Amino acid sequence: MKQYKPKNRLSSQAYINGVLAGDRVMLSRAITIIESNLASDKVLAKDIVQQILPYAGNSIRIGITGVPGVGKSTFIEAFGLYLVKQGHKVAILSIDPSSQRTKGSILGDKTRMEELANLEDAYIRPSSSGDTLGGVANKTGETMLLCEAAGYDVILVETVGVGQSETAVHGMTDFFLLLMLSGAGDELQGIKKGIMEMADMVVINKADGDNITNSKLAKRQYQNALHIFPLGESGWSPVVSTASSTKHIGISKVWDEVLKYKALVDDNGYFIKNRNHQKIQWMYNNINEELKQMFYGSEAIAQTLETLEKDIISSEVSPVKAALEVIEKFKKSF
Amino acid sequence: MKQYKPKNRLSSQAYINGVLAGDRVMLSRAITIIESNLASDKVLAKDIVQQILPYAGNSIRIGITGVPGVGKSTFIEAFGLYLVKQGHKVAILSIDPSSQRTKGSILGDKTRMEELANLEDAYIRPSSSGDTLGGVANKTGETMLLCEAAGYDVILVETVGVGQSETAVHGMTDFFLLLMLSGAGDELQGIKKGIMEMADMVVINKADGDNITNSKLAKRQYQNALHIFPLGESGWSPVVSTASSTKHIGISKVWDEVLKYKALVDDNGYFIKNRNHQKIQWMYNNINEELKQMFYGSEAIAQTLETLEKDIISSEVSPVKAALEVIEKFKKSF
Repeated sequence: MKQYKPKNRLSSQAYINGVLAGDRVMLSRAITIIESNLASDKVLAKDIVQQILPYAGNSIRIGITGVPGVGKSTFIEAFGLYLVKQGHKVAILSIDPSSQRTKGSILGDKTRMEELANLEDAYIRPSSSGDTLGGVANKTGETMLLCEAAGYDVILVETVGVGQSETAVHGMTDFFLLLMLSGAGDELQGIKKGIMEMADMVVINKADGDNITNSKLAKRQYQNALHIFPLGESGWSPVVSTASSTKHIGISKVWDEVLKYKALVDDNGYFIKNRNHQKIQWMYNNINEELKQMFYGSEAIAQTLETLEKDIISSEVSPVKAALEVIEKFKKSF
Repeated sequence: MKQYKPKNRLSSQAYINGVLAGDRVMLSRAITIIESNLASDKVLAKDIVQQILPYAGNSIRIGITGVPGVGKSTFIEAFGLYLVKQGHKVAILSIDPSSQRTKGSILGDKTRMEELANLEDAYIRPSSSGDTLGGVANKTGETMLLCEAAGYDVILVETVGVGQSETAVHGMTDFFLLLMLSGAGDELQGIKKGIMEMADMVVINKADGDNITNSKLAKRQYQNALHIFPLGESGWSPVVSTASSTKHIGISKVWDEVLKYKALVDDNGYFIKNRNHQKIQWMYNNINEELKQMFYGSEAIAQTLETLEKDIISSEVSPVKAALEVIEKFKKSF
């Protein structure tokens, strides 16, 4: 009953030493273990993460989202290059629960971010795959901790603005950046409700050439819109700006705003409060997902639910009664 | 081991007949049974709701929210009076999970809505109490079904714009109305993020006297803001208008918009789709709450979590590992 165990695995201490020394190869190998679904790797990964914890956290974590076509990778490359020039070490990660199904991850395209990928102080890791958003978020979250322990002080976490993964990214970052295009209206259809309200900053990308006037107009519209909406607990008022990633215009402005935000939330205590809250929430997300898995993962429960859904729609059973029935069934299964 | 059973209870059929005949006294007595926490009443309530189901649903359900001070009860009274004059039967319910703690429910104040309360075609039921939001939502949801079976064709469900109860109200209504005041900025602090995006209509209340100019300005600001945000699945573009509840101005406009909305969603199929979705979701909300109760209701689990939270904040344990630990403990408890 021995499970398959890869032969080339080192001791947890070897990975930890390598990561702490900033060794990129060892960092990549450690992340591979975190992403692995093998039982033996899971034990190893838990050990590595556990021991790396005291060295993690010393970074600013920036979530970046926007619908496909908004120029996300071009922006991230320009932003990453700028940060490296400023003396930062930048890690670029992503959350993309759809990558497994579509056989292509958002950072997986090798032709993307070529210039950035060649820099010593930039580390790009394509999206890990996973069955559930929670699983993917765990892996990206732990990868982030490893990158921090390896000395990366700016972490960019990318996702696509079309699903629930924004909430996951928002829940693991300090600052949330939404990329938009001018021509408000059409492209908004791709952004899910609620994502706009998470944004600490909206950047109207591709503000160049014929697009400059429209971008300025869009900027003003978003500014008006965002000021109508309530302030978050951070006390930060969301900022709107324009940028051209290809022409490297408006990129430093983004970093300036991140620094302003950081100064504000360091000062008012929200930074550490939010980090602690996120860590605790991370545990609860895992617990709740596991509880749901125990219930919804059962074949018998799934069949009962299918029948009950039909009965509810045809008004044969009330929703409250249906819930009680299936919970009783679950309890009896132990 | 016989549990306390109230003596004045009738058969479920007696309540059902009374409700279907539109007998207000029987309706009130049936709702009291739904709100009761006695075991025998719960059995009776389940039976009543189950049998009333085929007669429920024939109404438009309107959720109404806004922070304290916005003039919610004055608006509801004016709106209710208008609807009754138009020949409708109006039931006014509320969700207020805080009512138990504060010993005062939002519709409980007897001096409120006096004129409306005296009309034969208006039925006002103060918020039921409950330990959890889910429990309160169940009771209000089932009360709504009873009111519909009793012939009320407009259901207004009120809540306070400061907490999670908005999501519950949004999840059980067809149309969601947000009351605001002019002077955008200050009063917004009371509205939680995300509530604005639920609104099908925003009404700037107290638009009278010196306030008219400000209200018109606020209307334009909200209009601009809401148009920037993505459309919901209903295909409805949220509307902003002004009203003076005390002067009965702008009240008919609200109903006109509700009717326009209804025509749109009847036509595009969203009305029935959303109703079915809500019914199914109602079951899942109950299931998920029950699962959480099984876990978090355990004293041993609660103690473990308290320790783990501290260990997570001090970086002694990783969030993922902490979750695994406590889930293992839970599984062993069966």
